[in-house]
Amino acid sequence: MTSTLSSTPKEDGFRMPAEFEPHEQTWMLWPERPDNWRLGAKPAQKAFADTAKAIAQFEPVTMGVSTRQFQNARNQLPEYIRVVEISYNDSWMRDCGPIFVKNDKDEVRVVNWQFNAWGGLYDGLYFPWDLDDQVPVKIAEMELLDRYDAPMILEGGAVNVDGEGTLLTTEECLLSPGRNPHLSKAEIEVHLSDYLNVQKIIWLARGMDPDETNGHVDGICCFARPGVVLLNWTDDPKNPHYEIVHDAFERLNNERDAKGRKLEIHKLLSAPPRMITKGESEGVDIVKGTKPRQEGDKLGSSYINFFIANGGIIVPAYGDEHDRLVVETLARVFPDREIVSVPDAREISLGGGNIHCITQQQPSR
Amino acid sequence: MTSTLSSTPKEDGFRMPAEFEPHEQTWMLWPERPDNWRLGAKPAQKAFADTAKAIAQFEPVTMGVSTRQFQNARNQLPEYIRVVEISYNDSWMRDCGPIFVKNDKDEVRVVNWQFNAWGGLYDGLYFPWDLDDQVPVKIAEMELLDRYDAPMILEGGAVNVDGEGTLLTTEECLLSPGRNPHLSKAEIEVHLSDYLNVQKIIWLARGMDPDETNGHVDGICCFARPGVVLLNWTDDPKNPHYEIVHDAFERLNNERDAKGRKLEIHKLLSAPPRMITKGESEGVDIVKGTKPRQEGDKLGSSYINFFIANGGIIVPAYGDEHDRLVVETLARVFPDREIVSVPDAREISLGGGNIHCITQQQPSR
Repeated sequence: MTSTLSSTPKEDGFRMPAEFEPHEQTWMLWPERPDNWRLGAKPAQKAFADTAKAIAQFEPVTMGVSTRQFQNARNQLPEYIRVVEISYNDSWMRDCGPIFVKNDKDEVRVVNWQFNAWGGLYDGLYFPWDLDDQVPVKIAEMELLDRYDAPMILEGGAVNVDGEGTLLTTEECLLSPGRNPHLSKAEIEVHLSDYLNVQKIIWLARGMDPDETNGHVDGICCFARPGVVLLNWTDDPKNPHYEIVHDAFERLNNERDAKGRKLEIHKLLSAPPRMITKGESEGVDIVKGTKPRQEGDKLGSSYINFFIANGGIIVPAYGDEHDRLVVETLARVFPDREIVSVPDAREISLGGGNIHCITQQQPSR
Repeated sequence: MTSTLSSTPKEDGFRMPAEFEPHEQTWMLWPERPDNWRLGAKPAQKAFADTAKAIAQFEPVTMGVSTRQFQNARNQLPEYIRVVEISYNDSWMRDCGPIFVKNDKDEVRVVNWQFNAWGGLYDGLYFPWDLDDQVPVKIAEMELLDRYDAPMILEGGAVNVDGEGTLLTTEECLLSPGRNPHLSKAEIEVHLSDYLNVQKIIWLARGMDPDETNGHVDGICCFARPGVVLLNWTDDPKNPHYEIVHDAFERLNNERDAKGRKLEIHKLLSAPPRMITKGESEGVDIVKGTKPRQEGDKLGSSYINFFIANGGIIVPAYGDEHDRLVVETLARVFPDREIVSVPDAREISLGGGNIHCITQQQPSR
């Protein structure tokens, strides 16, 4: 039995655990729409399947699939991946999916934030987004988890927590006019505090992809463990992200977390931007209301968009010299986890995000 | 993790439990198609919701719902009914859904029979039936149950077991040309034995609804407990089912079950046939390929199509004088179970079946 609760997680003693805490399973959604994924989403489906298989080395994976693609997904994925029917508008489970919270008794509940495709009618990426918005309810039903309906638009990729009361986010995203223009920054902080049970919010200015997610924090920075963050980094002043990451460094370096700790900052290579090719662009249907994928558009191909699984790190790879450097950094920062690369991550980035954007961890009960 | 097994339940020591054995939950599907259910299925949805609520007094209920109807079903049903997305062609969970089997360690698996809408292109009730046919796979995935794919067309309503090795069925249905014309009666018996692990099959000649299910056994007869059956009954020679039920009585009376017991036969009132009215018929869309619901057509309104829940009997009621007599019989045959009537069962029968046809029990693990 699933109940819709009118209290808040904070009132009930539930908090959002960090991604590096133990997972029961990881949720994903199967890519399909031909107006976002080239060649009828076939190359992306292979990359999503590779991601699911990589994560399943460490923990169970459930793939949500539309009616139309159910049989194909069931055939493309090995039997150890659970495949369930869930409808959606696109396949960004991190952003449209639930954020799970848990209490000290290891009970787990769902927080159902509102979703409007990264900006709604203001600067959203497609229309409509009604099915995406129902995904958290459907997962709560399927898993028999109680649910909180949070009164604010928020995507999972817009926040990152240390599980000990600290939350990272960006002003560019949470204060963007397409999200919650009726809410002040202080009011947004109250909702984050009430529904994720955090005590300290660290605001970065901007993320890396203003045109896509309005600068999600999961494209620039994340906690590796309490007191330790990884930050996208470049020393090259000609890199278009130079100013953004240097400003983020300054802010992080001058902040303390909810426990009063100064943050240890590890720099993760931000490769020079990769661009959509003409051939790639031509494989995408052009549809009114959907952001086009045009030749020369920058890809969301930052390595920081990796996923932390139980005992593993699932990291995008692009087949160039940067891959190895990133794996070395991650192995140093996560000495107890195995680093696993997904080789065709470019196909995910062609749709507007990467491994972190297409996954959502459900904490252990 | 769900595996598709190439062995058979019989080989693995799994058997189909009787409906009167303990259930973990009951599965249903939400009615929707306007070419089978009058007035956009709204009256049927109320009757299905009432059925779900009646069963939920005794055990958990999961309702499978299409994408289109998810929000409406979630709103129509109380929170204690679990609602999950499953696509289908129509809402007869007994017939298109899984048959569950279990072993002595209380492990449960799914048997996935083929489904062709009660006769396929020969005399099936609608076209296509591809989504119905996938329902058992989707339930096995969702519940993480291993699965057998049985090499034969069979609906759950076509068989009834005592859980101790005996199966009831009808020749009219299992030997109908729209099912498995390439299989002999002996070959069909082998498949039933292999996949349901029964040792004795009792063949009745005919059921009550040749034009609908080709005479499913769940419209005429069922086990109440090992050695005891309930049989649809009329003493009125003018009742069109008079010959059918008297022939069934003779056969049952001359048979012994798998344990060598003679059967105790309880007679359950078969009311005179009820007919579709002009007004009811006019509420149904006419669509090529779907059996029309016409004024004067006989309804599948036999009381024997009740459902046995944990501690309860859920029985159709039609608001006439027969209802009370049937409840009295059921209270006598099931002294330890509470008899609960669903008052608007006529709305279910207008679609071609009744409470047993729209439910499928999942045995306890």
